[in-house]
Amino acid sequence: MDYFSKRYHPPGTSPGTLTRPEGAEAAAFVITLVDYSESEFLEKELATVEECQAVLSRPTMTWIDIAGDVSPAALSTLGELLGLHHLALEDVLNTGQRPKIEEYEDQLFVVLSAPNLANDKITLNQVSFFAGENFVVSFHHGNNSGFGEIRNRLRKGVGRIRTQKVDFLLYALIDTIIDHGFPLLDSLGERLEDIEEELLAKPTKSTLNDIHLIKRELLLIRKALWPQREVVNYLLREEHPLITPATKVYFRDCYDHTVQIIDLLETYRDMTASMLDVYLSSISNRLNEVMKVLTIIATIFMPLTFIVGLYGMNFGNGNTEGSPWAMPELNWYYGYPMAWLVMIAVTAGMLIYFKRKKWL
Amino acid sequence: MDYFSKRYHPPGTSPGTLTRPEGAEAAAFVITLVDYSESEFLEKELATVEECQAVLSRPTMTWIDIAGDVSPAALSTLGELLGLHHLALEDVLNTGQRPKIEEYEDQLFVVLSAPNLANDKITLNQVSFFAGENFVVSFHHGNNSGFGEIRNRLRKGVGRIRTQKVDFLLYALIDTIIDHGFPLLDSLGERLEDIEEELLAKPTKSTLNDIHLIKRELLLIRKALWPQREVVNYLLREEHPLITPATKVYFRDCYDHTVQIIDLLETYRDMTASMLDVYLSSISNRLNEVMKVLTIIATIFMPLTFIVGLYGMNFGNGNTEGSPWAMPELNWYYGYPMAWLVMIAVTAGMLIYFKRKKWL
Amino acid sequence: MDYFSKRYHPPGTSPGTLTRPEGAEAAAFVITLVDYSESEFLEKELATVEECQAVLSRPTMTWIDIAGDVSPAALSTLGELLGLHHLALEDVLNTGQRPKIEEYEDQLFVVLSAPNLANDKITLNQVSFFAGENFVVSFHHGNNSGFGEIRNRLRKGVGRIRTQKVDFLLYALIDTIIDHGFPLLDSLGERLEDIEEELLAKPTKSTLNDIHLIKRELLLIRKALWPQREVVNYLLREEHPLITPATKVYFRDCYDHTVQIIDLLETYRDMTASMLDVYLSSISNRLNEVMKVLTIIATIFMPLTFIVGLYGMNFGNGNTEGSPWAMPELNWYYGYPMAWLVMIAVTAGMLIYFKRKKWL
Amino acid sequence: MDYFSKRYHPPGTSPGTLTRPEGAEAAAFVITLVDYSESEFLEKELATVEECQAVLSRPTMTWIDIAGDVSPAALSTLGELLGLHHLALEDVLNTGQRPKIEEYEDQLFVVLSAPNLANDKITLNQVSFFAGENFVVSFHHGNNSGFGEIRNRLRKGVGRIRTQKVDFLLYALIDTIIDHGFPLLDSLGERLEDIEEELLAKPTKSTLNDIHLIKRELLLIRKALWPQREVVNYLLREEHPLITPATKVYFRDCYDHTVQIIDLLETYRDMTASMLDVYLSSISNRLNEVMKVLTIIATIFMPLTFIVGLYGMNFGNGNTEGSPWAMPELNWYYGYPMAWLVMIAVTAGMLIYFKRKKWL
Amino acid sequence: MDYFSKRYHPPGTSPGTLTRPEGAEAAAFVITLVDYSESEFLEKELATVEECQAVLSRPTMTWIDIAGDVSPAALSTLGELLGLHHLALEDVLNTGQRPKIEEYEDQLFVVLSAPNLANDKITLNQVSFFAGENFVVSFHHGNNSGFGEIRNRLRKGVGRIRTQKVDFLLYALIDTIIDHGFPLLDSLGERLEDIEEELLAKPTKSTLNDIHLIKRELLLIRKALWPQREVVNYLLREEHPLITPATKVYFRDCYDHTVQIIDLLETYRDMTASMLDVYLSSISNRLNEVMKVLTIIATIFMPLTFIVGLYGMNFGNGNTEGSPWAMPELNWYYGYPMAWLVMIAVTAGMLIYFKRKKWL
Repeated sequence: MDYFSKRYHPPGTSPGTLTRPEGAEAAAFVITLVDYSESEFLEKELATVEECQAVLSRPTMTWIDIAGDVSPAALSTLGELLGLHHLALEDVLNTGQRPKIEEYEDQLFVVLSAPNLANDKITLNQVSFFAGENFVVSFHHGNNSGFGEIRNRLRKGVGRIRTQKVDFLLYALIDTIIDHGFPLLDSLGERLEDIEEELLAKPTKSTLNDIHLIKRELLLIRKALWPQREVVNYLLREEHPLITPATKVYFRDCYDHTVQIIDLLETYRDMTASMLDVYLSSISNRLNEVMKVLTIIATIFMPLTFIVGLYGMNFGNGNTEGSPWAMPELNWYYGYPMAWLVMIAVTAGMLIYFKRKKWL
Repeated sequence: MDYFSKRYHPPGTSPGTLTRPEGAEAAAFVITLVDYSESEFLEKELATVEECQAVLSRPTMTWIDIAGDVSPAALSTLGELLGLHHLALEDVLNTGQRPKIEEYEDQLFVVLSAPNLANDKITLNQVSFFAGENFVVSFHHGNNSGFGEIRNRLRKGVGRIRTQKVDFLLYALIDTIIDHGFPLLDSLGERLEDIEEELLAKPTKSTLNDIHLIKRELLLIRKALWPQREVVNYLLREEHPLITPATKVYFRDCYDHTVQIIDLLETYRDMTASMLDVYLSSISNRLNEVMKVLTIIATIFMPLTFIVGLYGMNFGNGNTEGSPWAMPELNWYYGYPMAWLVMIAVTAGMLIYFKRKKWL
Repeated sequence: MDYFSKRYHPPGTSPGTLTRPEGAEAAAFVITLVDYSESEFLEKELATVEECQAVLSRPTMTWIDIAGDVSPAALSTLGELLGLHHLALEDVLNTGQRPKIEEYEDQLFVVLSAPNLANDKITLNQVSFFAGENFVVSFHHGNNSGFGEIRNRLRKGVGRIRTQKVDFLLYALIDTIIDHGFPLLDSLGERLEDIEEELLAKPTKSTLNDIHLIKRELLLIRKALWPQREVVNYLLREEHPLITPATKVYFRDCYDHTVQIIDLLETYRDMTASMLDVYLSSISNRLNEVMKVLTIIATIFMPLTFIVGLYGMNFGNGNTEGSPWAMPELNWYYGYPMAWLVMIAVTAGMLIYFKRKKWL
Repeated sequence: MDYFSKRYHPPGTSPGTLTRPEGAEAAAFVITLVDYSESEFLEKELATVEECQAVLSRPTMTWIDIAGDVSPAALSTLGELLGLHHLALEDVLNTGQRPKIEEYEDQLFVVLSAPNLANDKITLNQVSFFAGENFVVSFHHGNNSGFGEIRNRLRKGVGRIRTQKVDFLLYALIDTIIDHGFPLLDSLGERLEDIEEELLAKPTKSTLNDIHLIKRELLLIRKALWPQREVVNYLLREEHPLITPATKVYFRDCYDHTVQIIDLLETYRDMTASMLDVYLSSISNRLNEVMKVLTIIATIFMPLTFIVGLYGMNFGNGNTEGSPWAMPELNWYYGYPMAWLVMIAVTAGMLIYFKRKKWL
Repeated sequence: MDYFSKRYHPPGTSPGTLTRPEGAEAAAFVITLVDYSESEFLEKELATVEECQAVLSRPTMTWIDIAGDVSPAALSTLGELLGLHHLALEDVLNTGQRPKIEEYEDQLFVVLSAPNLANDKITLNQVSFFAGENFVVSFHHGNNSGFGEIRNRLRKGVGRIRTQKVDFLLYALIDTIIDHGFPLLDSLGERLEDIEEELLAKPTKSTLNDIHLIKRELLLIRKALWPQREVVNYLLREEHPLITPATKVYFRDCYDHTVQIIDLLETYRDMTASMLDVYLSSISNRLNEVMKVLTIIATIFMPLTFIVGLYGMNFGNGNTEGSPWAMPELNWYYGYPMAWLVMIAVTAGMLIYFKRKKWL
């Protein structure tokens, strides 16, 4: 995930400008139409946006799902067909929006951030919804498998989804997006546990990088998901003609999930902060061990080297030979064993000292 | 405790789906029925959920307690018998919910997190309650000894419990769950004091791991218990036909306990953060000591080794023998004692230097 | 101060149970009765709680102060005499409550935490008050000298205290408890200044422990005093028949003090956090100094030792004696002084290098 | 950016004093007048403020843009012409104000902070607006290219800008200022990614300085932009005769941008804090490596040096020559190879030890 | 600045006691009377408080300014003359109050904390105001030059001050106190920039102390100035007969300044926290450098010393003389140059190794 991932027009551009911002390439998009009522069900892929016009005039409920990077032209046509506000349309094109909900007369415009986990890589894709009296339009990137699942439920008439108004469809779509947070957090939780295990047993340089990178991901996900709480709360609390009281119970459930996800993200974040502290302490601990080895070795061998150096001195070699002041130890009969005794005593003394200090 | 412990259906699943999520194995469960009024008391273990039907039609108060992992089938039957909402039933199965309270028409649905301390291991079990006009249904895992205590109070008619409506039973159950936080915090407080003592006296690598693990536990417990405050506050503040004013005084007491528990958790958490800082400083302190030993040893023996090496040089051995410039010290009568004097002087100087620096 | 200091009954115990929790020993308690009106004043020590009955029926104002650990039996009797709620009575026995204020019909129940400083040791004692139409009952542990002072003011009729209703007495008692925070903070501030001076001049291991322990105390005091703000705010803002508008002005003053105390505690806490950071940096600084000494010594003597070792080699002693390639330096007339010159040059070079690096 | 960048008069100066504060030099300024209605458009540069008087009496909309450091005299004249409040005028002169919105009778006074990025240097310039019934006056420093863009839109009649009232012009100007945050954050995000890459691969001293300086910039930008949220929220929520409901939809969009910018700033700031922690750990890691090299070298060569020193001792040279206790090893036939064997064995042992400790 | 600087009476003292707290010495004070209306102006220094009585009965506006440490007696007299509340009078004597505003019937009592910067030393002096229908009394310590400036404005009739009611005088005084924050923050900002420069270039032990001390000052100033925001907000928002709507516009300006000052203080505080982190990293960086020097020296000279020690061994001196196993190298014709070659090779190898590790 990048630190900055919003598409934007240069400052001063007229609001509602429907062009792809520079650097964003045109990509393919797929329009899937689902039209249903309690008794009817129709599903087809559209070649152009205009094709949906016929269905929209009927009293059935219509769900237009546009997967991929919609073209400004198609978006503009759709906006005219359904009377969508140009500011909202701009937000569909300029992905990287903050999740939000906006009322435009009788319509609702919802922007969410769909977390996606594929091959251990996390991506956040913008998903936008327009909801009107009898239609929902959804725009999304990437493969949100959950949407296919909802088409299944509509096709088979599982649960209440066919018998309710479009607000229930809107709920089902939003709920799917939000529930994608659970497998994500599940996987992040596992990664945290792996890192923690490594950290407490044998931390390495890569542990540090892992902690930092997971912290970065947590911060960016949190930034993206935090405002979804407000969005769902709005749907739950505000009076809006599109949202029936029966559906509000479901949005309450959905709100609960957003809060739980944010709580977990905060807890994970606090844990990474603690892990960084533990890492630093572990490294210092290790340094301590290294230094103890060095100190022990130096403390034992420096005096010994001094002693052997002492008796390597050449006093008494020249014209002071035989002088009683010229290294008489060298002339003692047991001089050499005595030197060894002294050295062994010094070593033993040091070892006892280190034992007492609990360094050994 | 795991970082992630919520059971969930894959995103896109129809809301209110009553199946055990994958990976959750079927387990036994025990249904205990208590039926009481001011004058009557009946207690029995039920084989099937349907058995309770007979009692429910009577005007007495009924408490159905289901211990263990209830089966989706039994839950579904119970839901039909008592008119429980399918979203709430799903939350009973998908344990790991965030504590919450929800109104469904005239019923209340409460989810709590029961902290449990057994063999120094902390677990958090979900406890769910449904409260209707004359019944309370409770679902819990693990051994919440407090529930047996409440059955005792009902049996013996201790205090007000038999003379009040079911809201008092609901209070007694919630109060029991929340009060389990006190022995938990008592034990955590003791662990913190042990760790602190170790930290200030002689910190080791395991002290670090202990601090980290207790911090992790505190964060996870806090995440689980924090929302209980809202739950009890709701019971205390909101007007609901099930909750009589007389019982609200008791919920106020209960609210007080949740707040006190959260306050303590926050204080504990702040202490662990401080402990991590102290740990790091202690380790650095210890490194300092190690380094001082090394430096003192090196600073004393390096000059000595140099001196003894100096007089181990072979100048004056060959054809310069007798030259006044070829290590004349070796030929001095008191050369060797002089060397010792120099060495003793150097050592003494160093010791004085270290004494002044307060390193000794 | 302990991390956990609340007395509690095992979870599941009937609310309002008046028994001493396990482990809490029975202790003596002293009942002092003060009965006063603008014109009358009576003060006596009571042997039993029942003795106060006679006075209570009179229209005068009555203050019953119970110092020490009141027995459950006496408390129960008092509760019946004055119509006190059993939940409140339980909170009097189970000390370690969070400060709070509770309304029970026409009575007010207040719990405060009295900070006490004796011999540099801080303790927090629970003080509880019941206030009714013409009585105040106070329970406290330890020696709250302030209460004697208030008895003096009542006896001598200093200020308004005799001419006002019992709410003014309640104010005077609460104000005394809260104002004990000032000498406490004064003393903590001095300790902080001592620690800071030590920290900036010559930090030792005990400085670290001092910082940690004062931080711990600050966290625990803050936890205890923070909710008192709410308590006094309640007395100041809420309409209650017992609290006259004239007294509210005094509670405003009292509120001001609680806020000031909490502000100071927060500031102190922030300072200790900063001190821990400074401590760590100081230790690292000191390590740096130690290492510089070691490095300077090693860097000077290692080359010297190499040089003297070099001319201690025995080349040219055996059958290569006289060979021009066998350590000819040894045979130079000025060989030895040359060696000294080289060594002095090396040392001087090193010293200049360290001077430039600002290590000396 | 400086820590303190506000211009202010000495305390005690009369409010509304229109003089340049000491130290602020007089600079040139350019007045551009744009007068427009749905059908008309006039644009010219004015030499003096008085010239705009003629246009103001007409019912068209007028935009007076003053670029650069307006003189107190011109400002004063303008204030009289348009009835601007002297406190607001003072705030135009004393740049470095906190962003704010103030109502003065029927006029609105808005102060914003325009972030500007030029040559990788960030500056924050104060932009002030007065909006009256049919005029907008804007004061700005630096080159806010966006204003030219808006003049273009007015000239060409792009979008709604010519058909709306002055509130839409005010929106367009504010929106331009706020949207300058996006390129800024885009560039800061890139810098953060560069720093992060360096940090995780090979941190140097300059990485540390970079982290610190970007953190400083983030803090100062955040301080400047945070209050803009309130400003736009005010325009969005409050009822004011100047702001039509149609424009509020556009301010909602603008509000969304301010929130998104602040969210990003907070996330960036959290990242820099984490980066500082990672930096410290990396440095400690590197120290560990250095110390390991030293310890390995010392641990291998110290015993070796001891051994060779041992057989450099001169026992057995003098009158103990031939004594069986005087370094008999020297007289062994294979003494020298044995010494080598011992030394090789010691070295091998050490290497195995380090291999096991994973130091090699 | 001290951590604790509040004067207080012992707990239990009667509220409104007007005595100097123990340890506070009596000091001189100066009473200056200014009496003015649109047309009249009178200024004189009073010997006793009673002298002002004559002026107070006139309809003109009166400002009594008491500089220095007012005596309890004078304060008491003044209280009786003007009907000031005894709790407020106590707060005037017990300096070190938290800034606050209190209503006493028709009077306002304001306490502020005046930051003062003299000779690079920051002090915080309490300034108290009483405002009644036609008088303002101000008490202040230290030299608040701003007050003299206001007397000048009154004398000369600069601006609106003579034509407005006393609320404008109150505003002018409060504004002066608050605006003293700007030069203070200006100076603190400069100090921060100096410290930062030192920190990034060459941090020393004194840099650490400077950071800590400025952080301490920032915390204490913040504690003192934070509540002033509430005070000014109260004057701005609340309806009070003394405060005319015309003056509220000025208080809005004043509120703006308090918020700006607090914002800056928070930003400065965040910067000091970051600086402490940077300091620690810098010290670790420096340690790294020191250790590299040591390691390089040791790694080069230890092998060399070993080699020269090797050929200082005495094998082949005694009865093994001539043995082919007894240090044959010593007898090689080019033995000595070979030894040098080996030593040069070892050194070169090490240098290449360090070059590759980028240590050199």
